[in-house]
Amino acid sequence: MDNSKIGHHISGQFNKELEDVRNKVLTMGGLVEHQIKLAVTALTTGDVEVAEIAIKLANQVDDLEVEIDKECMQILAMRQPAAFDLRLLVTVIKIINELEGIGDLSERVAKIAIQLSSHKSGKQDQFYELEHMANLVQGMLHDALDIFARMDLQDVASITGLDKNVDREYGSIIRQLSLKMMENPKNINRMLDVISLARSVERIGDLACNICQHLVYMFKGDDVRHLTQSELEEKLNIKNSD
Amino acid sequence: MDNSKIGHHISGQFNKELEDVRNKVLTMGGLVEHQIKLAVTALTTGDVEVAEIAIKLANQVDDLEVEIDKECMQILAMRQPAAFDLRLLVTVIKIINELEGIGDLSERVAKIAIQLSSHKSGKQDQFYELEHMANLVQGMLHDALDIFARMDLQDVASITGLDKNVDREYGSIIRQLSLKMMENPKNINRMLDVISLARSVERIGDLACNICQHLVYMFKGDDVRHLTQSELEEKLNIKNSD
Repeated sequence: MDNSKIGHHISGQFNKELEDVRNKVLTMGGLVEHQIKLAVTALTTGDVEVAEIAIKLANQVDDLEVEIDKECMQILAMRQPAAFDLRLLVTVIKIINELEGIGDLSERVAKIAIQLSSHKSGKQDQFYELEHMANLVQGMLHDALDIFARMDLQDVASITGLDKNVDREYGSIIRQLSLKMMENPKNINRMLDVISLARSVERIGDLACNICQHLVYMFKGDDVRHLTQSELEEKLNIKNSD
Repeated sequence: MDNSKIGHHISGQFNKELEDVRNKVLTMGGLVEHQIKLAVTALTTGDVEVAEIAIKLANQVDDLEVEIDKECMQILAMRQPAAFDLRLLVTVIKIINELEGIGDLSERVAKIAIQLSSHKSGKQDQFYELEHMANLVQGMLHDALDIFARMDLQDVASITGLDKNVDREYGSIIRQLSLKMMENPKNINRMLDVISLARSVERIGDLACNICQHLVYMFKGDDVRHLTQSELEEKLNIKNSD
């Protein structure tokens, strides 16, 4: 592992504990990524079995959250870490909470995919833009987890910068759906489901950005949660990693 | 303060630090409660100025989150606490995140209240049920903060038990709104705003339940986030506080 921050402890056991936590976060992240992919596939293909796999994965995601959280608390209690190690452990607790939230949203997408699967007409067309937005947020999550894996903040601002594209696509989808509702009021319940889908996907983008902000705190000790995108970019350019 | 868990440290300074964190969380909680009240008042009266006050409060809520988070990290680094003190500090970090989320949702309610304020007709009637649901979630948040203030878990299950009522009211509001949309498709955009409102209020109930779950962890060391309501009730009856 190419990582200058972990692995410098006198206690080899402490190194192993931190490494184990880090690996479990990446496992949990991979699971959540898989869950989103399945949910979106279920949506675009109408495959109920795939949706059900995505829903079942939620339990594994929840279990991993509880396990990692517990491990972090044990390390905090036993090792009483300071500086980077302390920030790593508290940040992990925050990141797994965001991942669990993304898992919940993916489960929601999969459940709505099942509801919508009974309508056969024009499925592919209807979800073309939603699928595009889903690909965008999947990329954001993947890249955020990659920052955690590589321990390198370089791409943070380009990930959080994508959120305005997600918001723009979300706005466009909502406008189109409201027009469709007006044209054909009989479809309103179905369209409300699609709006709920779009909202869930948009929220996944927000949570991926939250992960990025937590990672900035972990590496630099700066709380950037309430900064604008340009303030974040400025902060990342001006200050060097400690 | 009637509290057997804080105030037992040899270091008087450490006691003061924990007490200060606790007071700040309660201040932040009070601020968020005030923010919801203003947002709901703005909604039912159509008073734009009140909505703007609710929106401006979001900055104070954000600042308090950053301040408390920083203070917790400093105490973790300096005092290296274990057992209840460690759980208290990590739980505070989680609770203020939920409170910030509730602040965000209240800001959202206030913003939609401004959008809707231009429509003069039938305001009171339309929001009667939404106001009822908002009162319910406000009560849940208030009682959750009261548990933190009194350091007594007794009412936890009755608070989280209310979430099914919130969900039921939310479902009923959505069904009514979708009927109204079908009857009058010209009102669809306005109705979509009201759906977004209802969703925000429903989420506030979820976050109030999250706070309760964090508090169970703080007092008992049990992670109950993924338990059902009946599993939670069983756990709280069977096990005694440590």
